[in-house]
Amino acid sequence: MEGTLHLRVLQSLRFFALIATLIFISAFTLQGLVQSAASPGPRPSGAPQASPSPSPSPTAQPSPSPEPLPPPTVNIADYRASTARIIGAALTTDRAYNRLAYLTDRIGNRLSGSTSLERAVAWAVAEMKSDGLDNVRAEKVMVPHWVRGEESLEMTSPEPRKLSLLGLGNSVSTPPEGVAAEAIVVRSFDELDALGERVRGKIVVYNAPFVSYGETVRYRGSGASRAARYGAVAALVRSITPVALQLPHTGAMNYDEKQPKIPTAAITIEGAELLQRMNDRGEHPMLRLKMEAKFLPDAESANVVAELKGSEKPDEIVLMGGHLDSWDVGQGAQDDGGGVIAAWEAVRLLKELGLRPRRTIRVVLFTNEENGSRGGDGYRDAHRAEISKHILAIESDSGVFRPEGFGLGAAAPAEARANFIEIAKLLAGIRANRIAANGGGTDINPIVKEGVVGASLNVDGTHYFDIHHTQADTLDKVNPQELALCVATMAVMAYTVADMPEALSGPRLASQ
Amino acid sequence: MEGTLHLRVLQSLRFFALIATLIFISAFTLQGLVQSAASPGPRPSGAPQASPSPSPSPTAQPSPSPEPLPPPTVNIADYRASTARIIGAALTTDRAYNRLAYLTDRIGNRLSGSTSLERAVAWAVAEMKSDGLDNVRAEKVMVPHWVRGEESLEMTSPEPRKLSLLGLGNSVSTPPEGVAAEAIVVRSFDELDALGERVRGKIVVYNAPFVSYGETVRYRGSGASRAARYGAVAALVRSITPVALQLPHTGAMNYDEKQPKIPTAAITIEGAELLQRMNDRGEHPMLRLKMEAKFLPDAESANVVAELKGSEKPDEIVLMGGHLDSWDVGQGAQDDGGGVIAAWEAVRLLKELGLRPRRTIRVVLFTNEENGSRGGDGYRDAHRAEISKHILAIESDSGVFRPEGFGLGAAAPAEARANFIEIAKLLAGIRANRIAANGGGTDINPIVKEGVVGASLNVDGTHYFDIHHTQADTLDKVNPQELALCVATMAVMAYTVADMPEALSGPRLASQ
Repeated sequence: MEGTLHLRVLQSLRFFALIATLIFISAFTLQGLVQSAASPGPRPSGAPQASPSPSPSPTAQPSPSPEPLPPPTVNIADYRASTARIIGAALTTDRAYNRLAYLTDRIGNRLSGSTSLERAVAWAVAEMKSDGLDNVRAEKVMVPHWVRGEESLEMTSPEPRKLSLLGLGNSVSTPPEGVAAEAIVVRSFDELDALGERVRGKIVVYNAPFVSYGETVRYRGSGASRAARYGAVAALVRSITPVALQLPHTGAMNYDEKQPKIPTAAITIEGAELLQRMNDRGEHPMLRLKMEAKFLPDAESANVVAELKGSEKPDEIVLMGGHLDSWDVGQGAQDDGGGVIAAWEAVRLLKELGLRPRRTIRVVLFTNEENGSRGGDGYRDAHRAEISKHILAIESDSGVFRPEGFGLGAAAPAEARANFIEIAKLLAGIRANRIAANGGGTDINPIVKEGVVGASLNVDGTHYFDIHHTQADTLDKVNPQELALCVATMAVMAYTVADMPEALSGPRLASQ
Repeated sequence: MEGTLHLRVLQSLRFFALIATLIFISAFTLQGLVQSAASPGPRPSGAPQASPSPSPSPTAQPSPSPEPLPPPTVNIADYRASTARIIGAALTTDRAYNRLAYLTDRIGNRLSGSTSLERAVAWAVAEMKSDGLDNVRAEKVMVPHWVRGEESLEMTSPEPRKLSLLGLGNSVSTPPEGVAAEAIVVRSFDELDALGERVRGKIVVYNAPFVSYGETVRYRGSGASRAARYGAVAALVRSITPVALQLPHTGAMNYDEKQPKIPTAAITIEGAELLQRMNDRGEHPMLRLKMEAKFLPDAESANVVAELKGSEKPDEIVLMGGHLDSWDVGQGAQDDGGGVIAAWEAVRLLKELGLRPRRTIRVVLFTNEENGSRGGDGYRDAHRAEISKHILAIESDSGVFRPEGFGLGAAAPAEARANFIEIAKLLAGIRANRIAANGGGTDINPIVKEGVVGASLNVDGTHYFDIHHTQADTLDKVNPQELALCVATMAVMAYTVADMPEALSGPRLASQ
């Protein structure tokens, strides 16, 4: 164990070196910003949405915006010191990583209805209380309780083969003896529609290559019902990922109530390609799919909520959160253990630093994002009276890779966008200052629909879908330094928005 | 199915376009080579090992050699036409890919002693006869018959978790109830030796990060016996791969006969890192390993041998081969289905083109490379009388990714190296002209030790160890165009060496 201690010391030293460098860079960057912020003046209408002085570094360029924005009302010079303290503190503690390690290694994955999710809820409440956060509570939410049970897929002809699978969340089961039928492989819904009734009595296999998550996930979401419409008896979906290493990716599907409910599962790229080749060679592969998947009665779960109470306007709220639940495979480390820990640690760090803002910062660890969105709906319903007091809601649910900035909801008022872009300049030193044209998340969507300004923490997504919803979403995929940078990014944005004298969205809020 | 036909036609058209381009490039490249080869003259001693005329393209640069070489005796101008025909033919047929598809999709993986390996032997013999190759036969070899049986690994404390594993080839079993013990994690043999007797009664977990296959595979090969020396009851080895996607990689291990034989298996990077973290946090993870692995009596298998008989010196042999057996997971597509198919197709293509060389080209599909090397030993023993007649032996066992050239055994005579480098210039147009300073393979090693010049087909190895010895070594990992280029590369080298008027290694061979 001594070797480990030495490693820790070494890691700490490396951490300090990194921080020293970052603070050095930040100091220069921010000096430039302060100078430019000293005489901002009104931006001429139609002028490009860029810093009025030369950018101190190429990464300090804000993203272009389609419309001219009003001048920001926030004076970021006032937040240079708090930003430096937050970044310095975030990069010199391993609290976030150690908590994520406990959540992933010890509690494990956390599907709605599981004992592990409720263990996570109880643990988070106890830990947040020991952090000294305000108003720590578990807000009860009833959640769907889908259980996978045993499942298997085998080819019986032309050769006996076992195929890897993961049933899709919300799927029905097969009969105990399974569904045995010929596989018929399509690369798209167009190919399915062209076959039409010829898929009757068969197992439709969607072998759609990964284009993007948004584009390709349609096959997982609605593939079963679209195949059932033509009489298919089951649907298998190629995993939604660019990487083929025999790893099935699960996720939610939804039945069209007008169609028969047929069982459905994800298979690996290798399995889908094998069936495609056999299909194309006219070998008529026969499959047997067995799934025990079912819904139990709704289970009790909770959103975990805690606050750093505002000093001047405690009823106005800046919300930060992610989701505590996960799929029932792997550890839910990037999706979304890292996200909830980053939001939580951001608030804890502000508390520890004595940085109490004018408005309240509230952290919410939502339940049941993955297969129901009951956490987000429940939060909206429980807080309906104060929704209009939510200045901003930030969701972190894209992993905790290197932060690049935020995506601000397209519906955000121009004043909010101007201030957001301005505040993000504080994050130029850690290259987290990009504000994308849109952003949000499943958990905050219910209150965003009610008019709250929503945003997402945006991170380098290069490898997110390699591991998304798989056995490989484990702690080793999280880089401790990147996690710490996510904490810093969230904390700086939340603190500054919560503390700025004017409202983020200007007088608009008051008029609501 | 019509859609598929259209796709085929389109693919064929693309193939033709590629070939036209390649032939165009080759013509120019080779014109340059012919001009330079017209007056080669002796290379001054100590001059760099480079073409005497400016290279027609950057890729035409031969690899540097540590010693000055004699002038080549081969006149590659004489082989321009045959090379063009071979490359053109290889890139306009899907025979190799279709055969590899049958071997992988229909026959499947092929561990020594399995019925699938013997099915592959019988299939290859029948197909080679239908190709019209000479002297097609299965040469009997008795092989070890190791079977995996059921296997499982679970953590019982501090949290119940199932861990992925693949028993290592040659491992003994556990008792039926398994081996239950605390895990103790080391990153290296040095850490093991430092712990010494403290691992007694425990399960040693080697969590050695991937450096290179050659460097890191030591833990798989000898980890069990080195741990047993200190009283460990089992050994688990982090999979030998740079990629962490919950995929265990199997492979052979060897017991030191002086130590107790303990069961041993590969675990995933995720599993090893989880145990490392728990170990480092003092959580004393407890494991239960169950393995049914055992040896059955040796089984009958065979090397499959076929020839293109030489027209002038039929008793002199250029051998090409790979191994037909594989591990018992995935499809053995890159390791080494592609290698045997490439060697076989190279000979078939020469036969089809009517390119009968002066010497005999012999293709050998070796058995039992993975866990015993009995195929290579058996070939040596069966052909002892003619070993000295083997001009060259080329093994393809690094996958059939884009070919880069060959590795020529370090023991090869300077004359052979000079000719090899010269002949490789014919492959500049397909960028397969690099001759590395060393090369060989397990199957040809027994005859190389007896003095035969050995070489390996070298390919782009970037992604080989992502899938090596796993469920993910499947046909989708093989690019049909890259496979065709491997066929062309092997065929050009084998044909030219078999046909050149002088011997590859100069007068040396005759004096043996």
